[in-house]
Amino acid sequence: MIFRQLFERESSTYTYLVACEKTHHAVLIDTVKSEVNLYLQLLEELSLKLVFVLDTHTHADHITGAGALRDAAGAISLLGKEANSNCVSQTICHNQIIHIGKIDLKALYTPGHTDDSYSFVIEEEQQPYLFFGDTLLIRGTGRTDFQNGNAAEQYDSLFRHLLKLPDNTLVYPGHDYKGWTVSTIAEEKEHNPRLQVRDLASYVELMNNLKLPNPKMMDIAVPANLACGKNESSTKL
Amino acid sequence: MIFRQLFERESSTYTYLVACEKTHHAVLIDTVKSEVNLYLQLLEELSLKLVFVLDTHTHADHITGAGALRDAAGAISLLGKEANSNCVSQTICHNQIIHIGKIDLKALYTPGHTDDSYSFVIEEEQQPYLFFGDTLLIRGTGRTDFQNGNAAEQYDSLFRHLLKLPDNTLVYPGHDYKGWTVSTIAEEKEHNPRLQVRDLASYVELMNNLKLPNPKMMDIAVPANLACGKNESSTKL
Repeated sequence: MIFRQLFERESSTYTYLVACEKTHHAVLIDTVKSEVNLYLQLLEELSLKLVFVLDTHTHADHITGAGALRDAAGAISLLGKEANSNCVSQTICHNQIIHIGKIDLKALYTPGHTDDSYSFVIEEEQQPYLFFGDTLLIRGTGRTDFQNGNAAEQYDSLFRHLLKLPDNTLVYPGHDYKGWTVSTIAEEKEHNPRLQVRDLASYVELMNNLKLPNPKMMDIAVPANLACGKNESSTKL
Repeated sequence: MIFRQLFERESSTYTYLVACEKTHHAVLIDTVKSEVNLYLQLLEELSLKLVFVLDTHTHADHITGAGALRDAAGAISLLGKEANSNCVSQTICHNQIIHIGKIDLKALYTPGHTDDSYSFVIEEEQQPYLFFGDTLLIRGTGRTDFQNGNAAEQYDSLFRHLLKLPDNTLVYPGHDYKGWTVSTIAEEKEHNPRLQVRDLASYVELMNNLKLPNPKMMDIAVPANLACGKNESSTKL
């Protein structure tokens, strides 16, 4: 497996490139529109064929590069069916397997941060990988107060799905604001303060009292992302 | 091996944590003073004992956390003997092996960016790792126009040492300004524009005509780093 983590500084977004060493098929997860040329450079230099470009959810803090990459590389764009986006090539559903050459990327429906949030797991016994957008953060969890977010659903996504994965699973966040790049399921179970809650009710109370300001780009990013990042009237700023 | 890459946004510095899974001994490479509490948190949460804290060279763009970490964690600080720093615990020399539990970190003297630049390699056959500070960059090389930098020496360090390492070696830079986190020897040999030069003379000509401005923090960072980041009169800003 060829694997790269890429960082976009403006929105502190991590983008992931996963590719099969044998077939050179590749997927990009959670791209940022401003970085599309850098992704294309890297794909070309590594002789990779971009087969899929997917978003874990409809982002509110940056504009996806999915539409531009679909056009430039002939890739299939993917987004959860719950997003109701008219422009994606295909929608994702729970337990769907996305084949990246010999690599199987399994989609898990993990709502809570938004109602269209998916996580993606590579269930290799020796070294599993998990990508989950903003459902989890390193030592935190994604906010649940907009885009049909729901703290109870997030609790369920975390405790019934993600935290049931093997302890050694490498967990790769959609963002990090303090420069950390990766963690593990074991580490988050033990040291993530939001996962130490007693029960569902405590978690809901915690999340519903965060009182966070809205993301700066929200009013632009959400409609633009539902249009695969190609809604020019919304992305001129 | 436990491995973490950490990013400090102000100076775009990457810091590396390498630790032995069996003994829980750890080393931190190229730390940043402002992040010391985050390193200490991570070490504690992963139950690691910081044995060494090392700098690849005397940095001109950020202040090392080595002195603070030595005090806080009882670690041994390491820096190349050519740095002539009075405050490090021990100096490093070419081909020295630093034992991090069962992991061997081999020091290579690779001057050019500065005259005290070292690289560190973990020569595991299946997956070698290389840390080189600013001698190499992803798709670039470190400037050679101050701190006794020397383009001819850097050419030698690159072509006689670093590029002779196995093609699959993962190469981890001291900085990246476009959000890329890792590369390989094969990839840099093929796609790094500065490594495509014809010969030594072309490389020296290229490097001596870059005409870059000095790093903003240089006058503060260099004396502070020679004092292990603990020169308070120089670090008050």
